[in-house]
Amino acid sequence: MSPDDDRLARATISLVAEPGDARALGLTRELGAARFLELLREHPELRDQLAAASARLAGVETERVLESAARRGIRFVVPGDEEWPAQLADLDRAGVLHDRGGVPVGLWVRGPLRLDRLGEAVSVVGSRSSTSYGDQVAAELAAGVGARGRPVVSGAAEGIDYAAHRGALSAGAPTVAVLACGVDRVYPARNRDLLRHLGEAHAVVSEAPPGASPFRIRFLARNRLIAALGRGTLLVEAALRSGALNTGSWADRLNRVVMGVPGPLTSPVSQGVHQLIRRGSATLVTSTEEVLELVGAAGSDLAPELRAPEQPRDGLSVRARQVLDAVPVAAPAPTESIARVAGLAPADVRRLLLALAEDGLVDRAPTGWRLTARGRG
Amino acid sequence: MSPDDDRLARATISLVAEPGDARALGLTRELGAARFLELLREHPELRDQLAAASARLAGVETERVLESAARRGIRFVVPGDEEWPAQLADLDRAGVLHDRGGVPVGLWVRGPLRLDRLGEAVSVVGSRSSTSYGDQVAAELAAGVGARGRPVVSGAAEGIDYAAHRGALSAGAPTVAVLACGVDRVYPARNRDLLRHLGEAHAVVSEAPPGASPFRIRFLARNRLIAALGRGTLLVEAALRSGALNTGSWADRLNRVVMGVPGPLTSPVSQGVHQLIRRGSATLVTSTEEVLELVGAAGSDLAPELRAPEQPRDGLSVRARQVLDAVPVAAPAPTESIARVAGLAPADVRRLLLALAEDGLVDRAPTGWRLTARGRG
Repeated sequence: MSPDDDRLARATISLVAEPGDARALGLTRELGAARFLELLREHPELRDQLAAASARLAGVETERVLESAARRGIRFVVPGDEEWPAQLADLDRAGVLHDRGGVPVGLWVRGPLRLDRLGEAVSVVGSRSSTSYGDQVAAELAAGVGARGRPVVSGAAEGIDYAAHRGALSAGAPTVAVLACGVDRVYPARNRDLLRHLGEAHAVVSEAPPGASPFRIRFLARNRLIAALGRGTLLVEAALRSGALNTGSWADRLNRVVMGVPGPLTSPVSQGVHQLIRRGSATLVTSTEEVLELVGAAGSDLAPELRAPEQPRDGLSVRARQVLDAVPVAAPAPTESIARVAGLAPADVRRLLLALAEDGLVDRAPTGWRLTARGRG
Repeated sequence: MSPDDDRLARATISLVAEPGDARALGLTRELGAARFLELLREHPELRDQLAAASARLAGVETERVLESAARRGIRFVVPGDEEWPAQLADLDRAGVLHDRGGVPVGLWVRGPLRLDRLGEAVSVVGSRSSTSYGDQVAAELAAGVGARGRPVVSGAAEGIDYAAHRGALSAGAPTVAVLACGVDRVYPARNRDLLRHLGEAHAVVSEAPPGASPFRIRFLARNRLIAALGRGTLLVEAALRSGALNTGSWADRLNRVVMGVPGPLTSPVSQGVHQLIRRGSATLVTSTEEVLELVGAAGSDLAPELRAPEQPRDGLSVRARQVLDAVPVAAPAPTESIARVAGLAPADVRRLLLALAEDGLVDRAPTGWRLTARGRG
């Protein structure tokens, strides 16, 4: 069978099977696309298991759809194409969730960005009903990973998805929207300008064929692609029932790292993220560096340990600190008085005061010792 | 040696040794308080190791201090007293941190609350420079654990400590302030009213004797007591250098559970807490129930799993959801049209529509089927 025959068979399956239908994708993998189609045509009794596929098969005109798509700048990318994102192979091993699973038969793509450039991508997802805090953090982290050369993958919803694309674009980074509907659809309508721009300068991707509606059930299939395309999935805000949690589950099944941004516990759209962190299903992240460390190769891109600035007291012995605590801020005190307060022998205190003076923590006045500004710090 | 002699010897050590001095407490444990004091008196050459103790020993008048304290309602509680909090014994096994460690020789207490009532206590600590978010969460969680019969333990600083006491008091729960200075000192001055109230109706506790100043180094020793008194330590807000992190380290060394409240990653006073959660040194908590589950006996007080309300679609099969997705919201559609959109056989769709109608998700109009309000939900 020629590659073109395989592409045509895969496009036909894409037109007749529901996106992510685990049975159809499993049979395609086992039998090959063309043989699976034959089987469907020859055995109407398979209808019960593959209802959508067999019912639609009669009227489908695959070549016409491919041509019409091509005229509108939409290509159909299949496994074996140079552009095919190799990381999707992990979907074969990730099993099934909500009857969805498996490697897609192909991906419909609008936009110049090649999908094989997504090997280092980070997926950023979250609530449609995000807060301005969530939007700000999503944009900043997406810009941060984008500026470090990593593409961003997200959906095209309002809220966190939108903010993530905006952040990546602000850093001049490639960014990809994976849709639950056809890549020629504008959904949600409010993101019309974003979708147009991504389709012109980046990429809009879907497993569902052109024209397909954004049925809710398709989002479950779509989420697995967002999770599979990225090296890790970052959840910025997600309420307890957020679809972003489904993406997080997929990332986990795919052995991708799952990362969560903390928020105020009074914020319902942080509850889902907090729950994942609490259960150990997601790692709390607070910066671009921490995200990069987690999605990077082990041992590379280590995030700098967050440290407060060193303080003058840091290196002191306990006894030196006892003396320092006993030195007055305002009126200078003689060594004997400091020794009494510190409970240390005057000779020791004298020695320690001289060392503290060398460090600039105390200074000597005619009537005794007092703290410097540095010593008070 | 009589119990009174032991108490007197311990009070003397409390007057001459720095709070939490690991060497003095270790020798007290090994030799007994009276023998350790003898040793100090007989061997001035120990001065180098126990500087504070030996230098102060000459002038100390323990009986006078105990009498003066008693007149002001301050008692000195020692191991062996009925009131002694048994959980402090864990400090003997917890080792030394920053030269501090060990079971205190005794505790100075002002207030009617007996310390042996703190067996189920929760320690709540955090930043002095808290945000209003942190204050609110600290007060709510302290009130929550207090309402469930658990005393609260904290310091007496402004910010989170203050909010924690306020929360416990609002729930009518016992609450204890552990100070780094003498229990007769008012530090910080802004918390004068709180300290007076706790001393009259609850308890103010310190390892340092009456009159002792709130030297910085004493906070390190004090923190171990806050950590040791509670079954777990809750960090509400803590910047990267916050003393609350030191309390968390002590709780960890003492095999107490360490809990952290998440906050916006843009908030510097949440950075220290996030770092502990990220490292796995603290468990993220978002509610009283989660705190109670963690500090409770294993398997008791399990927090209810946070769940969003069930949705009408939750129990549906994938095919029923495919049908539901294909039913229009407004103008009713006939079965055949719905079957075409769903890609399913009309006979199956008819059966599924009847089942969906029974669940109240679709209803039948003269011209076909449409979604109900419940079906749109």
